[in-house]
Amino acid sequence: MVAGEGAESARKDAATAGPETDGAETGGAETSVRVAEAALREAVEVIFVGLGLTAEDAATVADALVEADLMGVSSHGVSNYIQLIYAPGIRAGRIEARPRLEVVRETPVSAVVDGGGGMGHVVGRFAMELAIRKASEVGIGAVAVLGSRHYGAAGHYSHMALAHDMIGLSLTNADKLVVPTHGSESRLGTNPIAVSIPAGDEAPFHLDMATSTVPLGKIMLARRAGQPIPHGWAADATGRSTTDAAAAFEAFRLLPLGGTYELGSHKGYGLAMLVDILSGLLSGAGVGAGGGLGNQVGHFFAAARLDCFRDPDEFKREMDEFLRQMRATPPIEGSGEEVIYAGVKEAAARADCAANGIPLHRDVVAYLDGLADELGSTAPRLGSA
Amino acid sequence: MVAGEGAESARKDAATAGPETDGAETGGAETSVRVAEAALREAVEVIFVGLGLTAEDAATVADALVEADLMGVSSHGVSNYIQLIYAPGIRAGRIEARPRLEVVRETPVSAVVDGGGGMGHVVGRFAMELAIRKASEVGIGAVAVLGSRHYGAAGHYSHMALAHDMIGLSLTNADKLVVPTHGSESRLGTNPIAVSIPAGDEAPFHLDMATSTVPLGKIMLARRAGQPIPHGWAADATGRSTTDAAAAFEAFRLLPLGGTYELGSHKGYGLAMLVDILSGLLSGAGVGAGGGLGNQVGHFFAAARLDCFRDPDEFKREMDEFLRQMRATPPIEGSGEEVIYAGVKEAAARADCAANGIPLHRDVVAYLDGLADELGSTAPRLGSA
Repeated sequence: MVAGEGAESARKDAATAGPETDGAETGGAETSVRVAEAALREAVEVIFVGLGLTAEDAATVADALVEADLMGVSSHGVSNYIQLIYAPGIRAGRIEARPRLEVVRETPVSAVVDGGGGMGHVVGRFAMELAIRKASEVGIGAVAVLGSRHYGAAGHYSHMALAHDMIGLSLTNADKLVVPTHGSESRLGTNPIAVSIPAGDEAPFHLDMATSTVPLGKIMLARRAGQPIPHGWAADATGRSTTDAAAAFEAFRLLPLGGTYELGSHKGYGLAMLVDILSGLLSGAGVGAGGGLGNQVGHFFAAARLDCFRDPDEFKREMDEFLRQMRATPPIEGSGEEVIYAGVKEAAARADCAANGIPLHRDVVAYLDGLADELGSTAPRLGSA
Repeated sequence: MVAGEGAESARKDAATAGPETDGAETGGAETSVRVAEAALREAVEVIFVGLGLTAEDAATVADALVEADLMGVSSHGVSNYIQLIYAPGIRAGRIEARPRLEVVRETPVSAVVDGGGGMGHVVGRFAMELAIRKASEVGIGAVAVLGSRHYGAAGHYSHMALAHDMIGLSLTNADKLVVPTHGSESRLGTNPIAVSIPAGDEAPFHLDMATSTVPLGKIMLARRAGQPIPHGWAADATGRSTTDAAAAFEAFRLLPLGGTYELGSHKGYGLAMLVDILSGLLSGAGVGAGGGLGNQVGHFFAAARLDCFRDPDEFKREMDEFLRQMRATPPIEGSGEEVIYAGVKEAAARADCAANGIPLHRDVVAYLDGLADELGSTAPRLGSA
């Protein structure tokens, strides 16, 4: 969408708007197929080459999208945004297929990158790699980004730090969809915060959270199912919390984490502002009234070397112990739930996908194969794999 | 308290446990008096000299405590913790009056500080000043701290960055008081996150939030008033959300921001873990099973120079515009509320205190004057001011 066209256009374009998913988008067993990682990666790569990206950039995009699927964040994998944002955006010129990336300000610990309107995944990877390189050299690196586009799952970039024994941070602003506490109109994006921290034997800590209570996708699922939503997820057109999923979708007003003031929504609102300031203002991309999925998006990345602070092996041993302590918390009796932590589900999804392939809805496979046909791709079709 | 003594001891010691307050602790007009800032600062300073601190360290502590009161965070000002933690802690030797602060690991961008068991305010100031000095020199500075004690309001330290045209971050772990999502026992502290970001003419952005839905103080206020609490604030002894304030206080189990899984408590839980990892593990202070108000506490501080990323004046102009945009959000009709942002209340409290003095409960004034008597202080008594 083009910023300024307002909620109506955004409603049409946006299928989901947060980094989380419960996998429901892939459908049930009868509508879901499993696709091998390598085949999916190749198919997506070929599609983006067909759309005009260099082979290297297409591989970067495919990597980011398939990684999201591998980690169970299917809302930000190959399923939604190729169709809704990336392919139409590149074709309409809202996203530059061959962007000129530029470092417009730099110190040994920091940089500002202008993404030249390119795919957010290409820009994001460039900027996060720059942050990691700076951290390799001086211990910490922080990079603010302007002139980018939708970059997929925030956690993809923070996750890149883990292999370097670094802590990774990734933030992005986004389309206006979240109301400030006590407000009646959307003023902020779902503005996710992603942090990844290395562990030893345990699944690394990997937090990738929208600063709204839920992403828009959850409202859409409830609406389709004709089910009510809990108070604290979204507001109606007056700004008041509603349990009516259809009214909530129509209003396009998510509530900040906390939901209501009584339950701390001013904290979710504060975190959303923080993300917008670091991503939008520190970079010069613009915040608040700016943003827009097909328009200016800003990001913020940082990496910090563990050995600035601790011996990495010692740190990871203590991380393991801490993570095990959390998981060993006795669950609420009779709840049937277990205590996990951010990163456990992602690690389990990765193991499952490696063993059984990546679950995709048949419609997604059909769309990707159709797009490959259109673009005259020579790669094998996923539907026939 | 000494770690390991469990909830019973913590319940006795802890009056409030989060950085927020609605000012209710100062009581109504009939029990509240206004004390001039300078008089309060001198009285507190003299008390801490009487307890054995150097004049410089006593001034640092007085500064931190009075600043909290000036910003309306009276829960972390002079009212609660001098009586509950600091004075008894120093007298019992759990807090070192004359600590040896040591930088145990250092790079141009980072450091680890061992606080030697000293007052958290002294250790915190030392570490945040070190982060600011590093940021002055190389753009960004990050300092992890072990061997510290309760440091008061987290926001006091992030706020120090503002005068240097820097963004400030301050985190601390704390006594076990918060249950992981789906868990039935407290495993994490209220682990606050404080971030301060400069603005131009508008009140700077200043977020100082516990990662629990509410601090313990709010449970205690409801309990005293015999009122129910909302679901999502705290759990009973089984770990289930309760509306019974007395049961909640007895159980000593706060819920993470979000309250319930359905409303995103896994995000609050994730943020609390993040704070514990950065404050406790990155420093070597210990997390999870460790902590304890009178025992090991870890902090994490960072400062980043605005001009690493933007021209500071340009940034501040855009901050002002953004902050005004947020405040201009139409409020929910008929709610009687206005839309503000993190930092507005603090700026208003500061202006009010400057004009009218700092509001204190008469009991607090009596306690401080009594302590001054005990310590043979020659400063004028607050009650006679």
